Amino acid sequence: MENEKHHSTNGVRKPSNTKGKKMEVRIKILFTSICHTDLGAWHGENEAQRAYPRILGHEASGIVESVGEGVTDVTEGDYVVPIFNGECGECECCKCPKTNICTKFGVNPMKRVMAGDGTSRFTNKEGKPIFHFLNTSTFSEYTVVESACVVKIDSSISHGLKKMTLLSCGVSTGVGAAWNTANVQPGSKVAVFGLGAVGLAVAEGARARGASKIIGVDINPSKFSKGRAMGVTDFINPTELEKPVHEKIREMSKGGVDYSFECVGDLDVLREAFLSTHEGWGFTVVLGIHSTPKMLPIHPMELFDGRKITGSVFGGFKGKTQLPLFAQECTRGVVELDKFITHELPFDKINEAFQLLVDGESLRCVLHL
Amino acid sequence: MENEKHHSTNGVRKPSNTKGKKMEVRIKILFTSICHTDLGAWHGENEAQRAYPRILGHEASGIVESVGEGVTDVTEGDYVVPIFNGECGECECCKCPKTNICTKFGVNPMKRVMAGDGTSRFTNKEGKPIFHFLNTSTFSEYTVVESACVVKIDSSISHGLKKMTLLSCGVSTGVGAAWNTANVQPGSKVAVFGLGAVGLAVAEGARARGASKIIGVDINPSKFSKGRAMGVTDFINPTELEKPVHEKIREMSKGGVDYSFECVGDLDVLREAFLSTHEGWGFTVVLGIHSTPKMLPIHPMELFDGRKITGSVFGGFKGKTQLPLFAQECTRGVVELDKFITHELPFDKINEAFQLLVDGESLRCVLHL
Ligand SMILES: NC(=O)c1ccc[n+]([C@@H]2O[C@H](COP(=O)([O-])OP(=O)(O)OC[C@H]3O[C@@H](n4cnc5c(N)ncnc54)[C@H](O)[C@@H]3O)[C@@H](O)[C@H]2O)c1
Ligand SMILES: NC(=O)c1ccc[n+]([C@@H]2O[C@H](COP(=O)([O-])OP(=O)(O)OC[C@H]3O[C@@H](n4cnc5c(N)ncnc54)[C@H](O)[C@@H]3O)[C@@H](O)[C@H]2O)c1
Ligand SMILES: [Zn+2]
Ligand SMILES: [Zn+2]
Ligand SMILES: [Zn+2]
Ligand SMILES: [Zn+2]
Repeated sequence: MENEKHHSTNGVRKPSNTKGKKMEVRIKILFTSICHTDLGAWHGENEAQRAYPRILGHEASGIVESVGEGVTDVTEGDYVVPIFNGECGECECCKCPKTNICTKFGVNPMKRVMAGDGTSRFTNKEGKPIFHFLNTSTFSEYTVVESACVVKIDSSISHGLKKMTLLSCGVSTGVGAAWNTANVQPGSKVAVFGLGAVGLAVAEGARARGASKIIGVDINPSKFSKGRAMGVTDFINPTELEKPVHEKIREMSKGGVDYSFECVGDLDVLREAFLSTHEGWGFTVVLGIHSTPKMLPIHPMELFDGRKITGSVFGGFKGKTQLPLFAQECTRGVVELDKFITHELPFDKINEAFQLLVDGESLRCVLHL
Repeated sequence: MENEKHHSTNGVRKPSNTKGKKMEVRIKILFTSICHTDLGAWHGENEAQRAYPRILGHEASGIVESVGEGVTDVTEGDYVVPIFNGECGECECCKCPKTNICTKFGVNPMKRVMAGDGTSRFTNKEGKPIFHFLNTSTFSEYTVVESACVVKIDSSISHGLKKMTLLSCGVSTGVGAAWNTANVQPGSKVAVFGLGAVGLAVAEGARARGASKIIGVDINPSKFSKGRAMGVTDFINPTELEKPVHEKIREMSKGGVDYSFECVGDLDVLREAFLSTHEGWGFTVVLGIHSTPKMLPIHPMELFDGRKITGSVFGGFKGKTQLPLFAQECTRGVVELDKFITHELPFDKINEAFQLLVDGESLRCVLHL
């Protein structure tokens, strides 16, 4: 990790200098946590998406400080979570029930300025712009987001705001992939590759849906005890296996699982996940971010075996429409958010929090501002 | 086309010498036609699947000559069509409504002998075995197939048996891909790549389902007039285009079609088909046979745009269960089989019929035995 990169996370702690403009919302961030996607962006894994200086961070919760012209659904003082995959409510995709990828404010790692006027709301001491990240930029005391990228949290559950941070990305992504994208059925068999917060949220979602077998795959054995609490019933450590993971999974599940989830961001893992499902109906959901420009390691004819594969962004949730209900379900305990918060630190310990993720120690470390 | 290869189609006209064994059916073939898959196998496009001498052919209709022990659903004198993708009715896949890939008798280009005893039912003059092809081997006066691979045709429509030949593969594959695999909705937009019998059957199926726009793509302009009869509303000849086909299709369909179908067997075409659909919900169905061992030309992150892709074998039809009903629908004119028969020849003109397909002259040439 070189200095310049450190700069992009260290240089972010000053408030956004500008108020929100038309259809924009300025948020005082109260809590933020670190997702693997921040790590990838920090490391500049995807060359085309690099932009420095930039304020990273996209998992957060906070309170609306002010709203720009035209914003009607949130107002000063509201408790909110920003969403990296926005919902304008008006484009063709927003109107279609089959997708949560808004044409205007869907996740876009290349976007680095506000859509309204093409400029940034952050500047450094010399007045030079600091770029935005994933519609959100939450590693900051204040941030400005488009109103399509913020969701109001019911004030009755505002005492649990800290937990709601996890709905901003990791837990919604994992649980939603199980519920919305795969639509996991009671009694079905599931394999989850990568037991970070995202993978374990998939397990939690599958457990809540009544899956009978949830096989967790990770090269870090310390994830196995964490997984048990999220409903993982069986574990595989690929480094201890003499055969390919998919062969082992097919044995354990009598022919293959019904659903597999790739939550690592690795092409070899993706192929193992694909081959782990049952022929005829197996369904693989890709959640991991694959930054290398390599193609899918699947032959067209392998699609003829009846295995299906798809990608899932933000768990298929339409953020503004569906997240408030999901937040209530979490409050009712359908999904237990607490289990995902393994660490808490003050915001100025952010580099320590990054290291906890790199070392595989934390699921989510919530930073307090 | 070398001599040895010719031999594999010319050497096939003698009857199968053996009766069917347990759970096998001996069929007197009355009509057979030629599918592009026969052409690929004849050319030995896929090295691993080569087997000589071999009796090709899998689109046919005929009459049951005799049945082996245990066969109860067809009997001597029944009109039947053989199916290359069988249905045993008993395996886990046959019991699952989500798939038509029977674990025992699903399409398998490597299979060259009967499942029961691992031997062939064909021999040459010296008594050496001639191999089977795709569960069917219909370029023969008599053939023997497993009972899972034969479907009885209602005797009331037996006068139309010749047409039923097309249900054996091409038309069922195309129409079924539109109906079962894609589930094309009324008013939707469709792009079909490759306007052979398979692609035009997709168009016919989409038309029957009420698609509002059906864009046909082919490098052979003579397919355009044929396509009009099958409901194709717009044509694109990629060789006359200055830009990638998918850009043109996105323009013509305001953002992309709802469904695209690859009916060529070419990776570049497959990628164009994938990119032609609308982001968020576009659905691409691969029907073409891709014999080269190259991987899907799709980046994992492209799945995050919400476009989906899947393969379809035999149009997703469970042959024994669903084909009798589909045959009735064809008789009622829901799908017009006649339009697909562009040529008829006596069986000994089979090489001429192959040439018609190679030259892009025929959709299907029905050979009379
Ligand atoms: N699709 C989306 O909307 C979305 C949202 C959030 C995160 N993500 C992506 O999901 C992935 C997971 O995120 P996270 O925050 O849970 O990350 P994480 O770092 O907490 O977890 C990743 C896990 O994968 C394990 N792993 C690494 N290599 C492995 C291998 N070869 N086999 C099996 N396991 C392996 C690690 O030990 C770790 O437990 C990342 O790629 C992230 O960018 C996607
Ligand atoms: N999935 C299945 O169950 C199944 C069943 C039957 C056939 N098939 C396969 O479907 C494909 C089509 O079969 P068919 O019998 O209709 O073949 P065909 O030869 O009659 O038709 C193929 C068409 O594709 C066109 N074409 C060739 N290159 C093209 C290009 N670059 N762009 C656009 N069009 C192009 C040709 O001009 C021709 O009209 C073949 O690959 C065949 O093996 C699959
Ligand atoms: Zn994230
Ligand atoms: Zn939108
Ligand atoms: Zn065929
Ligand atoms: Zn079966």
